[in-house]
Amino acid sequence: MTKKQMKLGVFLMGTGHHIASWRHPDVPSDASESMAFFQHIAQVAEAGKLDMLFLSDGLSFNDLSHPAELVRFEPLTLHAALSTVTKNIGLTATASTTYNEPFHIARKFSSLDHLSGGRAGWNVVTSYYEAEALNFNQHAHLDHTLRYDRAEEFVEVVKGLWDSWEQEALVRDKDGGTYFDKQQLHTLDFKGKYYAVKGPLNSSRSPQGRPVIVQAGSSESGTDLAAKTADVIFTAQQTLEDAQFFYKKLKDKAIAFGRNADDVKIMPGVSPYVGDTEEEAYAKYEQLQSLITPEIGLDFLSDYLGGFDFSGYDLDGLLPKDIPLTNGNQSRQQLIVALAEREQLSIRELYLRIAGSRGHRLIFGTPEQIADQLAEWMDKGAADGFNIMPPYFPHGFTDFVEKVVPILQQRGIFRTAYEGTTLRENLGLLQVVSRYGKVEV
Amino acid sequence: MTKKQMKLGVFLMGTGHHIASWRHPDVPSDASESMAFFQHIAQVAEAGKLDMLFLSDGLSFNDLSHPAELVRFEPLTLHAALSTVTKNIGLTATASTTYNEPFHIARKFSSLDHLSGGRAGWNVVTSYYEAEALNFNQHAHLDHTLRYDRAEEFVEVVKGLWDSWEQEALVRDKDGGTYFDKQQLHTLDFKGKYYAVKGPLNSSRSPQGRPVIVQAGSSESGTDLAAKTADVIFTAQQTLEDAQFFYKKLKDKAIAFGRNADDVKIMPGVSPYVGDTEEEAYAKYEQLQSLITPEIGLDFLSDYLGGFDFSGYDLDGLLPKDIPLTNGNQSRQQLIVALAEREQLSIRELYLRIAGSRGHRLIFGTPEQIADQLAEWMDKGAADGFNIMPPYFPHGFTDFVEKVVPILQQRGIFRTAYEGTTLRENLGLLQVVSRYGKVEV
Repeated sequence: MTKKQMKLGVFLMGTGHHIASWRHPDVPSDASESMAFFQHIAQVAEAGKLDMLFLSDGLSFNDLSHPAELVRFEPLTLHAALSTVTKNIGLTATASTTYNEPFHIARKFSSLDHLSGGRAGWNVVTSYYEAEALNFNQHAHLDHTLRYDRAEEFVEVVKGLWDSWEQEALVRDKDGGTYFDKQQLHTLDFKGKYYAVKGPLNSSRSPQGRPVIVQAGSSESGTDLAAKTADVIFTAQQTLEDAQFFYKKLKDKAIAFGRNADDVKIMPGVSPYVGDTEEEAYAKYEQLQSLITPEIGLDFLSDYLGGFDFSGYDLDGLLPKDIPLTNGNQSRQQLIVALAEREQLSIRELYLRIAGSRGHRLIFGTPEQIADQLAEWMDKGAADGFNIMPPYFPHGFTDFVEKVVPILQQRGIFRTAYEGTTLRENLGLLQVVSRYGKVEV
Repeated sequence: MTKKQMKLGVFLMGTGHHIASWRHPDVPSDASESMAFFQHIAQVAEAGKLDMLFLSDGLSFNDLSHPAELVRFEPLTLHAALSTVTKNIGLTATASTTYNEPFHIARKFSSLDHLSGGRAGWNVVTSYYEAEALNFNQHAHLDHTLRYDRAEEFVEVVKGLWDSWEQEALVRDKDGGTYFDKQQLHTLDFKGKYYAVKGPLNSSRSPQGRPVIVQAGSSESGTDLAAKTADVIFTAQQTLEDAQFFYKKLKDKAIAFGRNADDVKIMPGVSPYVGDTEEEAYAKYEQLQSLITPEIGLDFLSDYLGGFDFSGYDLDGLLPKDIPLTNGNQSRQQLIVALAEREQLSIRELYLRIAGSRGHRLIFGTPEQIADQLAEWMDKGAADGFNIMPPYFPHGFTDFVEKVVPILQQRGIFRTAYEGTTLRENLGLLQVVSRYGKVEV
């Protein structure tokens, strides 16, 4: 019997996920706006047979951010460019439901799916910075629950627009003079609580029928939306137990929504430090940690905790108990607070920890040890795969692809060739059935 | 003294600008969603040293449209993809100010400008189909004057966001630990009649400083906006006299707004039929005309005249006098009505005429004759260049590039090598000065 296959994405992030990666001597510090850089990484990832390239996004400038997020490419244009320099790897881009229109999103992802021959993925987010509202004619960010309620309807509209055209609708009969068959075109005419969108979409049914939907919310509203609508769930999990709990909870929720457990692939983020020896792996981490100044670390922690002002607090004291949950990324805030409490970390220890990992799991070791740690989570029901968050580019990633991936392949838990031509096929997801009843290829 | 240089764009349109081009035996009928097709055409255009690839857009499905507009790529994703398979040619994409947010537009074009090394252009439109409103949560399309008033403010916001970062702001000093210089970052904090956008943009100053702005409105509000804000004006002009009048009017308006006449390049659309003999050129046209069915032609005419219902009218009678101006593309409606009246065309003659040309000028002849007709408009103050609208792809375009362009080059009125690396340089436009006083390269 074939062993369960690991799914692997790489979370692209300019210089690397470690906050001080841009200061590393081997890292091109201008990576976040360098097409040559992204092209190289995309091609390395494809040589390693990874499932997808994952791009996050934000719609404001925030000077507390990870430097590689201060200025960067817009994800849909970057992925469209990457589609021409790759052949098989999936292209997942983040786009917010709070500051976009469903028609634009349906169309752009359909366009990317056509351009790439069926490799588009949409990471659905609801945005979390107050500053984003101020860039879009609004005075304040929408409430967390309202954002998720709107997001659910938004996704419904987008899926509806993607069903506008049946697969064979564009007959283009030169002799008869008929360009398309009107019977195979459907007008959505959606009128919901938040959106009124008539359709149909001016983009034909794309190679995947429906681009892959990714979700990363971990709050109750976030996991509900994910279990109901997502093909892939990206999540931050620090411990095996937490990951197993999350995995079971999401699979159970998906089943409760009438889906199969296998229809949803759960991929925690993980930041691997690969060395020829365990010592070397830790030394790579310590080198990056040494590049974090107190100012950088504290800004970063403040950003993760809704802009909390740490002035006047002793950096070597515990995290204050009175940090309020803000109307932002609540699941991330809760995760950070829980981590500090669980391990009784000082403020300084906490920022050193999360500035390095961005709230995600760090793993260290030789290629064999890294492979073991990934395989363990797969075997123990904590993950269907991983979104790899290289601490620094390119070497922190090429080490993973060149040294860890071959071991996963030797163990028979990772592909040696792409199974299909679309992201959906490579992820092992079911073909998508149009609401109008035709089974799509 | 160097002769005045002709500027040349190619208006990309799936199968070709002739409405029946998709039925032509040599035309790939699925071109509007084929990346292989667009890549080929882009590379032909670049081999011919053309200034830019021009992509129109629409935000609704309209079954009366040109077939190549029914389903098609979204322009920004397509141009991002084309940026990787070309090196010098400009990439101008249409985007509507009526159904977009300034922050998104500023960012996407800045991203395209970074991806392409300074080749992005934005064709600013205000949209004109009622159906577009219905895809964006609205009940009715905005009034024509209001659309242009909003557009002007929209462009102002976008230009402001493009000035967020000075050229040298991202110091990325690894040793000192400083990623950017706060003194060189500017927060726009725009509060206008229609838009409140704080900024700054999360994209650094792009290679052109400001992507090239293209405008195509011909109404009073449209020409005001163009003369005030555009670097390039695309226009439909049928006769030399009309074109001269428009050219002078727009240059005068630009001067009245405090600009130089040369800051605005006026490029009428023209659809060339190139033959080895004059007869062959006309035969190519007649071949396409013979592919227009009465139904296709009448649908197309109706679409151009705001959906006017022609049932009950004699196709061989004159155009009715009582066709009302709708809240759509008024300049195009007026042009069509004027054409019918000037030449006393029947309804059938009119649709045969415009279905072939889409309201633009048709020219016929040998390569020498085509070159003569283009040069005449340049010499007589009617154009700074042209947006070439090939009647069918690929041959209707390769004929132009391979046979007409060399003649223009021999005459010394068209480049044999690109002058610079950016679209702005190749168009001979001035470098853009940031509002914060730094002259940009």
